[in-house]
Amino acid sequence: MKNIALLGSTGSIGTQTLDVVRANPELFHTAVLAANTSDEQLEQQIREFSPELAVLADPSAARRLKERYTGKTRILGGPEGLLEAAAHPAADTVVTSMMGFAGLAPTMAALEAGKNIALANKETLVVAGALVTAKAREKNVAILPVDSEHCALFQCLQGEKRDTVEKLILTASGGPFRGRCREELQRVSIKDCLNHPTWSMGKKITVDSATLVNKGLEVIEAKWLYDASYDEIQVVVHPQSIVHSMVQYRDGAVMAQLGSTDMKLPIQYALTYPTRMPSAFKRLDFWQMQPLTFEKPDMDTFRGLKLAYAAGRTGGTMPCVMNAANEIAVEAFLAGALGFLQIYDIIEETMAAHSSRNDLSLELLYEEDAWARSHARQLLRKVR
Amino acid sequence: MKNIALLGSTGSIGTQTLDVVRANPELFHTAVLAANTSDEQLEQQIREFSPELAVLADPSAARRLKERYTGKTRILGGPEGLLEAAAHPAADTVVTSMMGFAGLAPTMAALEAGKNIALANKETLVVAGALVTAKAREKNVAILPVDSEHCALFQCLQGEKRDTVEKLILTASGGPFRGRCREELQRVSIKDCLNHPTWSMGKKITVDSATLVNKGLEVIEAKWLYDASYDEIQVVVHPQSIVHSMVQYRDGAVMAQLGSTDMKLPIQYALTYPTRMPSAFKRLDFWQMQPLTFEKPDMDTFRGLKLAYAAGRTGGTMPCVMNAANEIAVEAFLAGALGFLQIYDIIEETMAAHSSRNDLSLELLYEEDAWARSHARQLLRKVR
Repeated sequence: MKNIALLGSTGSIGTQTLDVVRANPELFHTAVLAANTSDEQLEQQIREFSPELAVLADPSAARRLKERYTGKTRILGGPEGLLEAAAHPAADTVVTSMMGFAGLAPTMAALEAGKNIALANKETLVVAGALVTAKAREKNVAILPVDSEHCALFQCLQGEKRDTVEKLILTASGGPFRGRCREELQRVSIKDCLNHPTWSMGKKITVDSATLVNKGLEVIEAKWLYDASYDEIQVVVHPQSIVHSMVQYRDGAVMAQLGSTDMKLPIQYALTYPTRMPSAFKRLDFWQMQPLTFEKPDMDTFRGLKLAYAAGRTGGTMPCVMNAANEIAVEAFLAGALGFLQIYDIIEETMAAHSSRNDLSLELLYEEDAWARSHARQLLRKVR
Repeated sequence: MKNIALLGSTGSIGTQTLDVVRANPELFHTAVLAANTSDEQLEQQIREFSPELAVLADPSAARRLKERYTGKTRILGGPEGLLEAAAHPAADTVVTSMMGFAGLAPTMAALEAGKNIALANKETLVVAGALVTAKAREKNVAILPVDSEHCALFQCLQGEKRDTVEKLILTASGGPFRGRCREELQRVSIKDCLNHPTWSMGKKITVDSATLVNKGLEVIEAKWLYDASYDEIQVVVHPQSIVHSMVQYRDGAVMAQLGSTDMKLPIQYALTYPTRMPSAFKRLDFWQMQPLTFEKPDMDTFRGLKLAYAAGRTGGTMPCVMNAANEIAVEAFLAGALGFLQIYDIIEETMAAHSSRNDLSLELLYEEDAWARSHARQLLRKVR
């Protein structure tokens, strides 16, 4: 029986994690649920899963829930509540599926408390990969990736020796705008952008998929998860999203993981590793398979990938700044206040204004994250 | 240092095995070389690799070599020589790349002598899978597949638990006649048949690829190598031969091994397992990759696959009989004495005339093999 703390339980990964838990009641106990603001949805989840603790990061949402709720589950609110959720003694595994930079502090708290991590918050490793992986080593806990690409890499690495790896090959759908030129991207709408061809995900990550920023963040994430150099990580556009990623070995062999586009597969894998449990997930049918195609990403048009490689290679606080600028820019894009291509400008100009520092600490990262957000917002004002 | 006995050293797999040995002199010592009739080629190999023992299965070829050769390597001839080669104390690993049914006795001799097997002779498992796998278990030795498909399955199974496997998916190029109907196949030439689209191999196996008999034999081989039921083994036509085979797990995930169409990759893997050694083999380039396509095999037109499934499901001596009839039929086809589709008729009629027996022994298999060959030859006379 695995005892799970699920941080971000009302989001896309969170609800799918609960689908996996629901399908395997003999394997999982939900000890802790935490969400941001969705008090009504969390209340339903509390009724169904009866966790020991439930947390809403937003204090007023927590107050609303506390006023209504009369059951046995303890309810907490605010960032301290989130940290308590991450470190709660009733859980052995913490699923981190909060959005963005906000996932960092709870993940660090969970590691500090010696929890294994099922990591669905890529920003944690993007921003603080060095700190997070060092803490995981110190506490001797596992970080199991929930991202479909990193879960695929993880599966491709099973039974193999790390020093025989030649290349990590991350596949990318290419997003809804694959093949378009800069001119065509000037006037794409939010609706077009949210129409992802293969994956159904939250809004922020769907925009990140369209810009290839998401794939860039995954490159940085892969660097930390698999101790790889950036030269060892290649991105390949694969519009069908059937091959979830691949590893090339030094003898020339390539191992690939394939599957349907269902996040429940990597979620279940991360929660049941080192075994695989039966599932009712859709099977691939190779007798009816569409052609699988692969192509080079257009990094000049979709600069998100190039910017992320640059941020990763610079290292230090630069990926944190890149991520913060992107979060602000995507927020503005989703609010209709920024054009699609301008997302890149905001990121690039914020990065250009930053001198990366290598004396990493959580405090420094909070500082630089705040600086980058404020700088990006200033840039936004100029755009308007 | 691995000490190798290479049986079938002058054939396609044999010479490629020596390419691998030549490229890794610090890893391999060639203790034994054995060939069928090519005394001049074997003599060159003896000069280059200085084995302790060299054998020519054909006694007159062995006599010719003995008359000329004055070096230190011991030369033997005939089937007894081949058995001595298989069990020679200077070797720890025997690469079995002889053609056809003739590979069975030396493979059993090698197993009896406690050698690990790098198996490139699929007929051994097709004909005597139950005996061979039982002997390998008894002697606690490994059988490592050299066939690219089975080597791919082997790689896809690394680090995984056998009871989590749902399906073994063998890929097939479909051969040079993929997509053609029976009518078109009536008058195909030997030359057309030997023009394989993706793999460069010996003549017999190239014809077997065109008939899909080769894939059928591989299905039976997979059954024995991986202790699978026939319902768990699926064949998928994949004309580009980039995906060498796949394993579907019970959570729905599919692991695939991909690579260039170079037999040296599986040969080296089998010889260096459990590690992977660096190689100069051609890498796949996914930025320039052709579309990968998959389709259902046409088992009504290319009946070889259906006949093999039927032989495998019947079990006992039936796969031996099927294989023997096929060897005779392909020989006749290559001699211009049989049409392409008539290969199936010879196999089918020989199988129909056989009552399978389950009290397997090597003696019984020799008997039934001889019966099947004689029966197939009789059928051939009627065709003429």
